[in-house]
Amino acid sequence: MDESAHTVHVAVVDGSGRQVAACGDGGLVTFPRSSSKPVQALPLALAAPELPADELAVACASHAGTPEHLAVVERLLARSGSTVNDLRCGTHPPFDPDAAAALIRRGERPTSLHHNCSGKHAGMLLACALNGWPRDGYTDPGHPLQRRIRALHAELGQAELQQVVVGTDGCSVPAFALPLHAAARTFAALAQPSGEYAGALERIFRAMTAHPFLVAGPGRLDTTLMPLVPGLVAKMGAEAFYGLGLRSTPHGPLGVAFKIMDGGERARPHVALAVLEALGIPVTPEMRALAPAPLHNWAGREVGTVRVELQLREV
Amino acid sequence: MDESAHTVHVAVVDGSGRQVAACGDGGLVTFPRSSSKPVQALPLALAAPELPADELAVACASHAGTPEHLAVVERLLARSGSTVNDLRCGTHPPFDPDAAAALIRRGERPTSLHHNCSGKHAGMLLACALNGWPRDGYTDPGHPLQRRIRALHAELGQAELQQVVVGTDGCSVPAFALPLHAAARTFAALAQPSGEYAGALERIFRAMTAHPFLVAGPGRLDTTLMPLVPGLVAKMGAEAFYGLGLRSTPHGPLGVAFKIMDGGERARPHVALAVLEALGIPVTPEMRALAPAPLHNWAGREVGTVRVELQLREV
Repeated sequence: MDESAHTVHVAVVDGSGRQVAACGDGGLVTFPRSSSKPVQALPLALAAPELPADELAVACASHAGTPEHLAVVERLLARSGSTVNDLRCGTHPPFDPDAAAALIRRGERPTSLHHNCSGKHAGMLLACALNGWPRDGYTDPGHPLQRRIRALHAELGQAELQQVVVGTDGCSVPAFALPLHAAARTFAALAQPSGEYAGALERIFRAMTAHPFLVAGPGRLDTTLMPLVPGLVAKMGAEAFYGLGLRSTPHGPLGVAFKIMDGGERARPHVALAVLEALGIPVTPEMRALAPAPLHNWAGREVGTVRVELQLREV
Repeated sequence: MDESAHTVHVAVVDGSGRQVAACGDGGLVTFPRSSSKPVQALPLALAAPELPADELAVACASHAGTPEHLAVVERLLARSGSTVNDLRCGTHPPFDPDAAAALIRRGERPTSLHHNCSGKHAGMLLACALNGWPRDGYTDPGHPLQRRIRALHAELGQAELQQVVVGTDGCSVPAFALPLHAAARTFAALAQPSGEYAGALERIFRAMTAHPFLVAGPGRLDTTLMPLVPGLVAKMGAEAFYGLGLRSTPHGPLGVAFKIMDGGERARPHVALAVLEALGIPVTPEMRALAPAPLHNWAGREVGTVRVELQLREV
């Protein structure tokens, strides 16, 4: 008996940006949320070609707020002469339960450094400094940095600027909505960098894949999945969005974006593995373990399972 | 722009059990999960007519594991000469963040007492003792207590026994699936008790409505909603199920059950208020505050809203 169900829409594009497969509506206009972070980090990568890879990785991260993450964010912040007080992301407890418990044990409150987007914000502050843009108002849609990021979404997504809808993200910077296939193109651009941004896109790809821990954190999907699939760059977004760039598949380099319509994050690893398998990527037992199908209750008893019905059709 | 969407099915029955309204599929067969707890507590209420109301309330609870909850569960456990070691519900940290943080600060691990179902299990152990049923195996589908509870689901739901599907719940007792309108009838039975169980059903109604804190916990929907709606008994279930018994509406006593198909718990308060409003219950500002429609991010900025489109049709 089925108890609950999630609906997913998927778009797959090739290295040239042509949509080659879809499930549901590949043209669904929706917000990649944090799956936009590689694009949001592109002005930084362009302005700071010598930036250490770990700092570029944390600028692309939805990090878990462990001490390792915070140390890299602080190093990145210092490069623009900024401090935690310049961050406009807000504050939440670390995603990592151990890091959150450690704060509680020490009687400390989380700061903006613990916010999963603090690396992105630190990177934005440095991009402003290096481009001579004002630090004030760096989260405003009209700020030169945010206008640049919107234009990059359109350019890499092969979309019209007007198609890139402006919302507000959980960390107060603009969130940009675009068709799923356009979001997939931004990941294809990481999988097969070309054109004027090729060098910066390559550095972002290498930073994220060399530092998967910094991109997310202990037990989180980006961190655990990337090392298991050669040539994969992956970035989760809120409300169950996922972007994947695949350098090496039987079909050549591919970009993938999917959205689980109800925002059900728990479905993401299951859908991700089904998509990878459909694209000819071998799914190993280590990968399968990231999306456990038999479900166990608090007493350790098996109580159900998860079934994925993915119909990826060529388009 | 819509970012995410949830789908809901609703069934409404009158005091006689006749289905009077629905949204989507009122006959959807699904698991009420913890919304079954009032039915699961009926053998206890029948066997222990003098049980204090707070203990009966915690037997119907998905509690938050605060010290107040634990004290009542321990009192109920002791009545059958049982201890925490007899509980078969498993262990998870308290749902209440303050209670969970207090455990961490004291360097303690949660026990089965903290499990949200520990009151139900303590009540089951007492029901076994009072009926002369073995304590061993009280969670097995073939145990006399569980067979009795399955039969009560059929009887109160006006369904055939074969329609009541047996699964395993998160706390290892059987979870019983039945059509939504049948689950709604179990709540109509609380709203308008009649027949041979009238006295016990009335005691359950009074216990839950007199002790809404014990039924859930700080800030949780059952706890906050029941005191705001005269004559309402409400019980949440996992995977976004909700059961409501309404003693006083313009249409007389009603029973309601709804299921959000993807298990998205966050939609529950929004749907609950929309259903109450559709049934002629005035929705006050205090009630509206339980389902905040403008959404704010971690920095306190408004970033979106929630819209409910409920089409409750007469059937």
